[in-house]
Amino acid sequence: MSEVAAPTLADVRQAADRIRPHAHRTPILTSSSVDARVGANVFFKCENFQKVGAFKFRGACNAVLALDGAEASRGVATHSSGNHAQALALAARLRGVPAFVVMPSTSAEVKRAAVAGYGARITLCEPTLAAREETLARVMAETGATAIHPYNDSRVIAGQGTAALELLEEVPDLDVVMTPVGGGGLLSGTAVAVTSLSPATLVVAAEPSGADDAFRSLREGRIVPSVAPRTICDGLLTSLGTLTFAIIRERGVRIVTVDDGATVEAMRYLFERMKIVVEPSAAVTLGALLAGGFPVAGRRVGIILSGGNVDLARLPWGPN
Amino acid sequence: MSEVAAPTLADVRQAADRIRPHAHRTPILTSSSVDARVGANVFFKCENFQKVGAFKFRGACNAVLALDGAEASRGVATHSSGNHAQALALAARLRGVPAFVVMPSTSAEVKRAAVAGYGARITLCEPTLAAREETLARVMAETGATAIHPYNDSRVIAGQGTAALELLEEVPDLDVVMTPVGGGGLLSGTAVAVTSLSPATLVVAAEPSGADDAFRSLREGRIVPSVAPRTICDGLLTSLGTLTFAIIRERGVRIVTVDDGATVEAMRYLFERMKIVVEPSAAVTLGALLAGGFPVAGRRVGIILSGGNVDLARLPWGPN
Repeated sequence: MSEVAAPTLADVRQAADRIRPHAHRTPILTSSSVDARVGANVFFKCENFQKVGAFKFRGACNAVLALDGAEASRGVATHSSGNHAQALALAARLRGVPAFVVMPSTSAEVKRAAVAGYGARITLCEPTLAAREETLARVMAETGATAIHPYNDSRVIAGQGTAALELLEEVPDLDVVMTPVGGGGLLSGTAVAVTSLSPATLVVAAEPSGADDAFRSLREGRIVPSVAPRTICDGLLTSLGTLTFAIIRERGVRIVTVDDGATVEAMRYLFERMKIVVEPSAAVTLGALLAGGFPVAGRRVGIILSGGNVDLARLPWGPN
Repeated sequence: MSEVAAPTLADVRQAADRIRPHAHRTPILTSSSVDARVGANVFFKCENFQKVGAFKFRGACNAVLALDGAEASRGVATHSSGNHAQALALAARLRGVPAFVVMPSTSAEVKRAAVAGYGARITLCEPTLAAREETLARVMAETGATAIHPYNDSRVIAGQGTAALELLEEVPDLDVVMTPVGGGGLLSGTAVAVTSLSPATLVVAAEPSGADDAFRSLREGRIVPSVAPRTICDGLLTSLGTLTFAIIRERGVRIVTVDDGATVEAMRYLFERMKIVVEPSAAVTLGALLAGGFPVAGRRVGIILSGGNVDLARLPWGPN
C-alpha cells in the first residue's frame, strides 16, 4: 500500500486488523434528548474516548505498524504539535521505536509535556512553517526517521476510516454519517469506508464557517487553502491535502459550514445531556444539526465525535 | 416482592428484565492512564450515561413498573428534589401515570424545571423536613398516589442492583466492586448482586469523610445518622435507611472515607483523561484509590460511576 494512493476498503479493513490490539473499540452512545431536539435518530461514535483522546491514534497507529522493520527501527517523525504528535508518539512507543516531534518554541508547556509523556524526543524550532519544515528535514536526515503526515497519507487515512467501519458494523441502515473536516483525514477515511460498504449512505462533513476551505475547495473544484482561519475549533484550522481532497471529491461528500456559536452550543449540550467531554472541533457536527444546517428529520444519523482534548479550566462558557 | 424485605438476586434479575426496554445498558470504559496511576485494572460502569444522568433511573423505573395497575393509575410521589425526583418523573411518564413531587420553595429553579420537564406535578413547601413530609402525606391523601422512597425500598434497591449485574456479565473475575454510599440504595443493590453472583468479590463503598454516617454506622452496629454533613458530594448527604443498613451489614461491605480534595482530584482526572462528565458524588470511589484509602495494586476493580449531573458553569476548579 503506497502512502500516496487513495486507500480502498481493503486497506481500511487491514488497518482495523492491525490496530485492533492497541486501539479502543469506542462505544456508540445515543440520547433521547438529542433525538427529540433534532428529530432524528443519532448515533455518536465516541472517538473522544480513543487513546490520546482523539481518532488520530487510529491513523498514526496504522501508519507506524505498516512500516517495514528496517524503516520502523529508525523511528517516525512529525512537526504536528497537536493530537497527531501525541498519537504518533504513543504508536511508536507501542512498537518500541523512537518518535521525533518538531514543535514551535511557542507551543504550550502542557502540549510539550503530553508529547514527552508518551516518550517522544522533542526538537523546538522557531514558530514559522518554514522553520518547522526545515527542522523536520534536518531531524529526518540525522536519524533516518520516516515522516508521517497527519492526514495526507494513505496509511493514516485508512486508519481513520476504521472508526466508521466499527460504526457501520454496529449500526446498520444509516442514512447519513457525519464528521468534522480540517485536513480531511477523518473525513476521507470515513468516506472510503461508508461509500464502499453502504452506497446509499450520505457522507456529510461539518466545517467551521471561519475556516471553510473544504467547502470552497469542493465548490471551486480545486484546493483553496484557508487564509488566516478564525474559529474556536483549533483542530480544524488546517486545509485539505491533495490526497484527502481527491478522495472527498470522488466520494461525493457534502460539506456544511457552521458558526462557532452553534458549535459551542452543541459542545455544551454534549457535556450536559450526554455527560461526555468533547473538544470544539468534535462538536461542529451536532452544531450543524442544531443550527438547521443540514436536514435530518426522521433519518438515522451516525456522528463521529472526533476528540475530547479541551482545557477544562477554560471552557467556552462562563459562570451562570 | 415486598418493598420492606431485602431483595434477592432473583429480584435484581426480575428488575433487569422489567427495566430493559427503558433503561440504557451503559458502557464500561477502561483507561490505561487510570490503570497505570493506581496499579490495577479498573473497569468503569458509566451510569452517568444512564437516563436522567444517574443510576437512580434504574430503581425508580423498577419501582414504578412493579406497581399493580390500580396502584399505578393513581400515580407515584416523592419529596426528593434531586436525581430521584427526575428519575421517578420519567419512569411515571413512561408508564403513562402521574408523578407528584414535593420540593422545597428554596430549591433551584433549574431543578424544578428539570422535574417539570419530565411531566411531574410539583408542589412547593417550606424548606424543612417536617413540611416536606406533611406535604407529601397531604398529596398522597388527595391523590391516592404511592410514595416511592429514594433508597429505603426493596424495589428501588433491586433496580439499582442491575448496574452491577450488567458489570459482572461483561467483566468476569473482579476482585473488588466499588460504589459511593449516601442513602445506600446503590450500595445495597450492588452488594446483593455481587455477593450472590461472585462470592469471592469484595464490595467496597467510598464515603465522604464529611458525611461518614455509613462508616460510623457499620462500626457501631447501629444507624448513626449524619448531623450537619459537609461535603462537595451533594448526592451523598443522606444517611442510611433501615433496609439499606441491614443489607450492607449482612453482605460484609467495607467502607472507606475520602476527603473532598481527593474526590475533586479524581473528578478532574475523569474529565481530563477519560473524557466523561461526572458529578462529585460519582468521583468519590476513584478519589479513594488516588488517596490510597484502599489497596488495589494488581487487582481487577469494577467502579460504578453513579451520575453526571453537575453544574458545568461552576466546576470545582478555577481557571489555570
